[in-house]
Amino acid sequence: MTVNLDEKIERLRHFIYEKGKDGVVIAFSGGVDSSTLTALCKEILGEKAVAVTAVSPTYPQEEIEEAVKVARDIGIRHIVVETNELSDENFVRNPEDRCYYCKKDLFICLKNVAKNLGFKAVFEGTNFSDLSGHRPGFRAVKEMEDVYSPWAENNFTKEEIRMIARRMGLSVSDKPPLACLASRIPFGEQITAERLIRVGKAEQIIKRLTGTRQLRVRDHNGLARIEVGKNERKLFFDAEIMDKIVIELKKLGFKYVTMDLEGYRTGSMLLTLEDT
Amino acid sequence: MTVNLDEKIERLRHFIYEKGKDGVVIAFSGGVDSSTLTALCKEILGEKAVAVTAVSPTYPQEEIEEAVKVARDIGIRHIVVETNELSDENFVRNPEDRCYYCKKDLFICLKNVAKNLGFKAVFEGTNFSDLSGHRPGFRAVKEMEDVYSPWAENNFTKEEIRMIARRMGLSVSDKPPLACLASRIPFGEQITAERLIRVGKAEQIIKRLTGTRQLRVRDHNGLARIEVGKNERKLFFDAEIMDKIVIELKKLGFKYVTMDLEGYRTGSMLLTLEDT
Repeated sequence: MTVNLDEKIERLRHFIYEKGKDGVVIAFSGGVDSSTLTALCKEILGEKAVAVTAVSPTYPQEEIEEAVKVARDIGIRHIVVETNELSDENFVRNPEDRCYYCKKDLFICLKNVAKNLGFKAVFEGTNFSDLSGHRPGFRAVKEMEDVYSPWAENNFTKEEIRMIARRMGLSVSDKPPLACLASRIPFGEQITAERLIRVGKAEQIIKRLTGTRQLRVRDHNGLARIEVGKNERKLFFDAEIMDKIVIELKKLGFKYVTMDLEGYRTGSMLLTLEDT
Repeated sequence: MTVNLDEKIERLRHFIYEKGKDGVVIAFSGGVDSSTLTALCKEILGEKAVAVTAVSPTYPQEEIEEAVKVARDIGIRHIVVETNELSDENFVRNPEDRCYYCKKDLFICLKNVAKNLGFKAVFEGTNFSDLSGHRPGFRAVKEMEDVYSPWAENNFTKEEIRMIARRMGLSVSDKPPLACLASRIPFGEQITAERLIRVGKAEQIIKRLTGTRQLRVRDHNGLARIEVGKNERKLFFDAEIMDKIVIELKKLGFKYVTMDLEGYRTGSMLLTLEDT
């Protein structure tokens, strides 16, 4: 395994050098995948690598600070740009492939940033494990010229990336996966700034009250369905904490405040596409 | 308070005698209100009082046995009739006043039973506390001739009825309030036999797994929102029990299985009528 991983890393370093040597912009969210990729790019390409974070209403507010801090630790040049997928009607009506539209807009933006820097390529952090799931956003990656997915194209799994992050001593190595706030809203229900802000606030409040780290507040038309890591469900086993969460989330306008007994898992929102 | 209650009971006994002396059928669900009313009627009217339970897909299966047992304890003649509100289109489409249609059908049925027995009146167990809530079913009571609500018409609160039940030594005196299974389905979502059966089964399973007594499984278009008595929430504080509930309810076809953090309260489904 380790030998194999070292060989894979060697191939990856070569890939990064080849595709990035004329300058590369890395789509940098502050999550494990893009942070580890960014650290490697900085190591291999030096000043020819620039991290770009696209901030928008779908990006959890508290993550911006975190991303800035991680970029500083890595020592890479970091640019924050604003995007607004809420101005794209295709995204707002929230179809099953909404990620396609969002990523398309994102990469057009990042390619512009690259162009302004005199750079050629864009890297993004999709990993090999992601490809087995529902990833309409990846279609946008494949359609764009000069946009690469070093992890996915070199078959790196999430676990391998975490291992590399640990070896490099990155603070994000055990960070739970992030996801765009739009993933809290069932397909077909309209995405609005208000709903995204509400969900973001609800998650911050619950993290503060319970100490949970892996959390999604899904907004089913005003019914909050709270998913927490399976091992973190016990942080909710307290009637007083439950009452506090109810009070705070009702203040935000939720009509019902519920905890998903199953806990967090990826892809749970795909069930909203099924017939009842 | 007690003096006052004794006086009220005296007036109530008089009311029951006056309205029921030519024979009365009591709408008898096996809940606290109708059981206590039935016991009083038996005491005051003897053979002139007959308890009738209307069984239908909206009536929780396990309650039939319970009602039979309570009637036997009281020593009253007990007739079980079948009704089927699911054949009433007005009920099935589940409008905000669905209870009106159901109760209308019910009282027509009970008046028929009364007629066949040579009886004149029908009693039903709505209490005074209920009147402050959302009770479109009560409109049907008021519209029907010879249908009376001895508790409501004599201002008996739920607490007073429980007190009388305790004094009479009735087994149901501390029984949690029942409610028609249709109350588990949000207004506007169609009521079907399948959904009612599913909700009924889910509640039986959860009662068995947790020991909870006050329970509603609300079915929000395939998302189960479990309401348990506020003091019973702690019966769910066990990840293994949560996992078991998820497995069983998913077998029944629920897509999401959630616990309402607020616990049980009456009228929670009225929120589905509000705009988001």
